[in-house]
Amino acid sequence: MKVDLSDFRVRPGEPVKLKHLDTHAPDGLSSEQAAVQTAQWQERLARLQDRLYAEAKQSLLVVLQARDAGGKDGTVKHVFEAVNPQGIIVTSFKVPSEQERAHDFLWRIHAHTPAAGMIAVFNRSHYEDVLVTRVHELIDKKEVHRRYQQICDFEAMLSSQGTRVLKLYLHISKDEQRKRLQDRLDDPEKRWKFNPADLEERARWSDYTDAYQDTLEATSTEVAPWYVIPADQKWYRNLLISKLLVRTLEDMDPRYPTSKLDLESIQID
Amino acid sequence: MKVDLSDFRVRPGEPVKLKHLDTHAPDGLSSEQAAVQTAQWQERLARLQDRLYAEAKQSLLVVLQARDAGGKDGTVKHVFEAVNPQGIIVTSFKVPSEQERAHDFLWRIHAHTPAAGMIAVFNRSHYEDVLVTRVHELIDKKEVHRRYQQICDFEAMLSSQGTRVLKLYLHISKDEQRKRLQDRLDDPEKRWKFNPADLEERARWSDYTDAYQDTLEATSTEVAPWYVIPADQKWYRNLLISKLLVRTLEDMDPRYPTSKLDLESIQID
Repeated sequence: MKVDLSDFRVRPGEPVKLKHLDTHAPDGLSSEQAAVQTAQWQERLARLQDRLYAEAKQSLLVVLQARDAGGKDGTVKHVFEAVNPQGIIVTSFKVPSEQERAHDFLWRIHAHTPAAGMIAVFNRSHYEDVLVTRVHELIDKKEVHRRYQQICDFEAMLSSQGTRVLKLYLHISKDEQRKRLQDRLDDPEKRWKFNPADLEERARWSDYTDAYQDTLEATSTEVAPWYVIPADQKWYRNLLISKLLVRTLEDMDPRYPTSKLDLESIQID
Repeated sequence: MKVDLSDFRVRPGEPVKLKHLDTHAPDGLSSEQAAVQTAQWQERLARLQDRLYAEAKQSLLVVLQARDAGGKDGTVKHVFEAVNPQGIIVTSFKVPSEQERAHDFLWRIHAHTPAAGMIAVFNRSHYEDVLVTRVHELIDKKEVHRRYQQICDFEAMLSSQGTRVLKLYLHISKDEQRKRLQDRLDDPEKRWKFNPADLEERARWSDYTDAYQDTLEATSTEVAPWYVIPADQKWYRNLLISKLLVRTLEDMDPRYPTSKLDLESIQID
């Protein structure tokens, strides 16, 4: 089964209706088939990452956003485990600290963008500042739109300075969220991940839907596109993201550096 | 074949003679056997790391030191790849920047020690400041000994504040270094790793031996021990380090947190 990644890309200027976008895998693809394909993509991912690191000229920033239990942690674990830990830094953005709140909302983000050669993964990101803050009415509509523009400008700057920006919204259904939160409660080894505040956020499901739709519409650009990844089945999500990372890195085309010195002739004693 | 990890530990106060310590695997252990065992240790490592992250109370700092081509990068790649990238941060310390040199030698190090729940891996470390600096006579003997004490105090503080400190010297023979450097020159995909300055350092082999011996003797403490890992064979090195990490984490005994709330009875709509 062939998957066309561009189907999941949010085109600049086009409206986004999440309820019309799949949260699940297509019929006819089994989890076993997907696992085999994912392993193949991850091998290619590891090889491309080695070249990216060696080249040390470009970098890749992967932004992960999702509702609670949407699979951000699982994506980090199962997709990025294939990559040399020396070449990747995962940053989980929590509720801002007092010091962070004393700065503009991009300040703490900028400190964690990837150096040349590196992959940075944001588990939550600056997008929380146009999602949570909006749903909880901490900022008004005018400020939301001001921030959209500031985000687009910031990401365009990163892109033009050598950082490829890839943004993934992990799209789960309301029923899948229910199952996953319930599973956290029922499993003693997962219970620590359960946060009672998640239930309050769940009650605002449709407010978040509106906030996500507006955000995806306003901030998916040519240089920093959003992808809406069907994420009810973890194995399908992992397959799509692994493939997307490979295609992105292939497009970046990192090369092993060549030396100007005549190294080939050296014999070491 | 049973391996006793304490054989590789540098006991506080005991002299270190690197030429008497193995750089190679024992007879009777094959690379195939080792690979099977390593995979088993790494599964355990992944499970223990999950608990460490969930508990979020203790942390682990792994310091990797070695001569050029000693296998630091390979250790990061092959041992730590098993771990969830969200729970690990690898920091490669290079030649200090101007800003870093304007501070004490522990300043840039401290900024990268692990937060609660995390594993930090140092690829090179504060130990460069008593090794390279000494061999190149940038500091005198008195300053070397002052730094030994400062390092011990610093690591004791980390340890008492919840960070377990584990220090690994990857021990290779001079002939193995020759082979590896030659290999870098001969392989177009590895040539970028070759640094002509490595040959100058190689010429100071015995100066580095002295510097490492004194350092290991002076800074291997009960709370922050050094291990001298035979590292001529990568598969043996990977086995020993994987096992050592598991034993260390088992001793730290991280637990999934329990909640005071009565979460078990919650049913989500």
